Amino acid sequence: MSTPTPFRLLCRAVPKKTCVRPAQCPSARQALHTFKTNFTSSVPKTPKARTRFPFHNALLVGAGIGSFCIGISLSPQASFDAPSVLFPFNGVFRETEEVRKLADNRDHALPRFRLSEVKEHDGKSKHPWVTRGDKVYDITDWVAAHPGGKIILTAAGGSIDRYWDLFAIHKQQYVYDILEQYLIGYVHSADLIDGKPPQDAIEDPFAQDPERNPALITRTATPRNAETPGQAISDSFLTPNDLFYVRNHMWVPVVPEKESDAYCLTIEMLDGTTKEYTLKDLKTKFPKRQVTAVLQCSGNRRRHMSEDSGRKTNGLPWQVGAISNASWEGVSLADVLADAGFKNDEAMLGRSEVKHVHFSAMEAYGASIPIKKAVDPQGDVLLAYGMNGQTLPRDHGFPLRTIVPGHVAARSVKWLSHITLSEEESMSQFQRRDYKCFGPNETKVDWDAAPAIQEMPIQSAITTAKLDKPKVAAPSNDQETPKPTQDLDVSGYAFSGGGRSIIRVDISVDNGNSWSQATILPDHKDENAPERGSADWAWKRWKFNTALPRSAFTEYEKKDIGDNISNEEPKKRCTTVVVKATDEVYNTQPDTQAAIWNVRGNLANAWHRMQVCTECEEEKKKTTGKSA
Amino acid sequence: MSTPTPFRLLCRAVPKKTCVRPAQCPSARQALHTFKTNFTSSVPKTPKARTRFPFHNALLVGAGIGSFCIGISLSPQASFDAPSVLFPFNGVFRETEEVRKLADNRDHALPRFRLSEVKEHDGKSKHPWVTRGDKVYDITDWVAAHPGGKIILTAAGGSIDRYWDLFAIHKQQYVYDILEQYLIGYVHSADLIDGKPPQDAIEDPFAQDPERNPALITRTATPRNAETPGQAISDSFLTPNDLFYVRNHMWVPVVPEKESDAYCLTIEMLDGTTKEYTLKDLKTKFPKRQVTAVLQCSGNRRRHMSEDSGRKTNGLPWQVGAISNASWEGVSLADVLADAGFKNDEAMLGRSEVKHVHFSAMEAYGASIPIKKAVDPQGDVLLAYGMNGQTLPRDHGFPLRTIVPGHVAARSVKWLSHITLSEEESMSQFQRRDYKCFGPNETKVDWDAAPAIQEMPIQSAITTAKLDKPKVAAPSNDQETPKPTQDLDVSGYAFSGGGRSIIRVDISVDNGNSWSQATILPDHKDENAPERGSADWAWKRWKFNTALPRSAFTEYEKKDIGDNISNEEPKKRCTTVVVKATDEVYNTQPDTQAAIWNVRGNLANAWHRMQVCTECEEEKKKTTGKSA
Repeated sequence: MSTPTPFRLLCRAVPKKTCVRPAQCPSARQALHTFKTNFTSSVPKTPKARTRFPFHNALLVGAGIGSFCIGISLSPQASFDAPSVLFPFNGVFRETEEVRKLADNRDHALPRFRLSEVKEHDGKSKHPWVTRGDKVYDITDWVAAHPGGKIILTAAGGSIDRYWDLFAIHKQQYVYDILEQYLIGYVHSADLIDGKPPQDAIEDPFAQDPERNPALITRTATPRNAETPGQAISDSFLTPNDLFYVRNHMWVPVVPEKESDAYCLTIEMLDGTTKEYTLKDLKTKFPKRQVTAVLQCSGNRRRHMSEDSGRKTNGLPWQVGAISNASWEGVSLADVLADAGFKNDEAMLGRSEVKHVHFSAMEAYGASIPIKKAVDPQGDVLLAYGMNGQTLPRDHGFPLRTIVPGHVAARSVKWLSHITLSEEESMSQFQRRDYKCFGPNETKVDWDAAPAIQEMPIQSAITTAKLDKPKVAAPSNDQETPKPTQDLDVSGYAFSGGGRSIIRVDISVDNGNSWSQATILPDHKDENAPERGSADWAWKRWKFNTALPRSAFTEYEKKDIGDNISNEEPKKRCTTVVVKATDEVYNTQPDTQAAIWNVRGNLANAWHRMQVCTECEEEKKKTTGKSA
Repeated sequence: MSTPTPFRLLCRAVPKKTCVRPAQCPSARQALHTFKTNFTSSVPKTPKARTRFPFHNALLVGAGIGSFCIGISLSPQASFDAPSVLFPFNGVFRETEEVRKLADNRDHALPRFRLSEVKEHDGKSKHPWVTRGDKVYDITDWVAAHPGGKIILTAAGGSIDRYWDLFAIHKQQYVYDILEQYLIGYVHSADLIDGKPPQDAIEDPFAQDPERNPALITRTATPRNAETPGQAISDSFLTPNDLFYVRNHMWVPVVPEKESDAYCLTIEMLDGTTKEYTLKDLKTKFPKRQVTAVLQCSGNRRRHMSEDSGRKTNGLPWQVGAISNASWEGVSLADVLADAGFKNDEAMLGRSEVKHVHFSAMEAYGASIPIKKAVDPQGDVLLAYGMNGQTLPRDHGFPLRTIVPGHVAARSVKWLSHITLSEEESMSQFQRRDYKCFGPNETKVDWDAAPAIQEMPIQSAITTAKLDKPKVAAPSNDQETPKPTQDLDVSGYAFSGGGRSIIRVDISVDNGNSWSQATILPDHKDENAPERGSADWAWKRWKFNTALPRSAFTEYEKKDIGDNISNEEPKKRCTTVVVKATDEVYNTQPDTQAAIWNVRGNLANAWHRMQVCTECEEEKKKTTGKSA
């Protein structure tokens, strides 16, 4: 006999684009069917509710009411995240079994499942489930919206914990909140060991990742995230391929080189029709284009933001090397879109319904850019297959990637497999969440309140700094004894988004009280990179040299070089170098990281302050030698 | 008999554009003729010198060697300013009269002229002269390069001092330096009274200037420069025409309203051919276009830069009101250029020889913008004849002005009479000098080293601030006695150039230690301004309200409201409000003016810090009343 149990009916609205065809929305049909056959309650009674939740229609067509299709979830605890529509509805659940009284003290309103039952809901099941800890989730409705795509099904039928250990990006509150919406019950206590289900070994998806140059500065090994060493930035206008910084969100997809000509790019137009291009098509049917462009992670210098402000942020603690510069070779996205039948000119004039171009990757990454950037003949957006005169390396998107010059690198999608023209931005978390900034006070943020980072603000940083030993100029007859000085040599880069040129780099060795100008270095010429593109998409590298007076050093401010230095004194002598840059529209960097601090730690572009030190021991020898 | 006198031959190179036809360069011919008939020396002997100074050719054609025509000046003291070419050449001057021994102690190497002789070199003379103080200058070679154009001839034949009193812009060292190049001698001592020549009255060119709203905050009366009051900015998304800030470099040209339909705009193509459009042509032959756009002076908030940094700058001491917003009506510059036969598409692709569009005004102002901005269909550059639904007022350019949205207002040339397509930027000082920025350390600047300001950086400012009297909330039963607070209401604007949207405005009441977000106000709808343009060319206005605790006030930090306040205590209680804004590419304002200080005081866009105070007297009464 059934026992009436309170429940709340929750309706989750998913953009139509996610499930255009009913076949893509089995969960909606199934959920409605389940609802109709198992519950006594009928549809909400008020006209308003009917309008907002016309699920009878949903049942008929499976999907496609207005611009939404409907998914349904049942749980007293469930809550939905924006942009879902929460539909509280009190009804009575007619269970077909007795209400169990469980021995455990977990929420008794939810059922218990044996792991064998969970296992049946694997990736091939129409209703895939996962466990996280001792909880069971029905992720049927989530698969289509998962930023990583159907890869989530790999974990279906078992525990997701091991996967989240690999893809640490999931270990954030908002990801937990999303999963919690799909909670359907708990793992049966008979299957728990120390309160947790046993963990199966899983296949390592990173096993096929390429070899990397050990000179890269590793931040995480899986997925691979590594900085370009400062010296490599100072040494070369074009960053060598094996020293180009690596920012991977997942593993590196495998495309055998021999099969790469047949690699297929799908372009989906607004009406849902598609056109396919093999890599060979791209290489042979379109003019070859070359653009020299910086890629910079939105988190570049994040560590400075945390350290300077004294406040932690989310994200990888990049220093100055999450930026590199290369000459990219490929074809113009605008050319390919035009060939696919898109009216670029209309879009340039803002007259197209298409407002965004989505890029989807083989390994599940996704992002979008505004259509105007995509079709602008001066925008230089490439579908690139070459890098610095070589085949695109696997770590950088082989066989095909997008290059969106002047924009945050998160839009230059690697391992590009699918382009979608759309009225909306990509629904990916990389578009809707991760790559945004908020006020320094905002720790619980409304993600929709800020725009996705596209063009970058101005940035500069120090990549090398060298402080020579103290030296004293030979005394001249008519002057006082010369004061000792130390030669300081620093170098670095400056870059601004949107193709805005760097016009000046200012350096201070007195914490911003006074400034000098660094020398902006000429760009190296490279026979492999004859074309640069329509704007200043590349960085400027700079150098600065000065003879610092003794007084510039914190530790020894009032001592003369002849003084004896006792062992009790500090072991280093240090000075601070500060750099800031200005671009052609005279935007400049803010003075402090604290004022631009944001919970994601993005766009840490305040003045770069670097402490430069010499070891005292060395110094001591020298001064002792001198006075002897 | 002639006495050999040492001299230096100085060759001044003037861009060919300035004197395309020989008739426009009489001075070059004349100078060369004078040179050949009066001097024993011949041309420089070295091949290099010949190449760099082939003045025989100059003599033959009058102008037009390579891309330059040649002017010659003679004086041992003379020096030339960049971009002139200095050509020192030692020779012998065969004077036709005895070398005078003058009674005065002024430079004996230079001749003396009677004022009657000066008077013959008036505006109609082929060799116009002016005096400044007791010095005589032959300005023949300068007229073509004078930023104010031939207006300088008004002063010819007499003293320029009175004009410079009117046009105070001349009272700067670099202007003195320019004039000094043309020194030819001194006013004869017989014509001096107290060491100066008598000053004639001159006609006031500002006599015809329009009436102005007295609510405008005047910075200079002639030429008229006046700010929009802060309250007017806070009150209205579109600034009323009579409260729109006024930035005039000279007088307001007079075009009778009845004759305005026949007002003629000349467009000069790269090959020198011209096309003319009357205002009526523009109004009837082209589609009407409307754009809502901010105009902001590059010097807006200059006074903050001086005050906050403690360092003076050149230029008008604007506060926050050298910015306004209006709906402009006119025709698209791109449409008109296309009609005149220019190939806009080629220029958009960077394939045109034309790189700049010059705008010249009736009263002699001139400036240019890059061709890509001019022809970009999304650039929204207008030739405007309407403002906020009314005829363009005289102060704002009647009958025709340029509107270059997103760029510094200096490019939105008023009283537009001439458009020139060119390979080079405008030679006007308003392009090549005034509107540039340099490093805080750079006080003697290389003007060519910085780009002319075009797109503006991000800016925000407080326009109104009101601090209410202290109040104490009614005590509740279960809490301590409530602390007194004071309500603070502030409002202001935020704007970024290049059409970049404002996404956030942050406010701090503790000098930047913590921040809140201001409320961004909706733009007013105006039936006269249905079209906005292709990007965010307008400003955002914002407001912020908070109840400040007693501790937020400097003067009374540790006192409680119940304390007696003695007469010795400060008369005000003050707090500082700070505002900063962020635009869609996440550029933000620098923290301090000192770090962006520049000798011209341009683009003072650091955080706006405003001290807000209440009078203590009022306060005292209130607290006394309370305790009584």
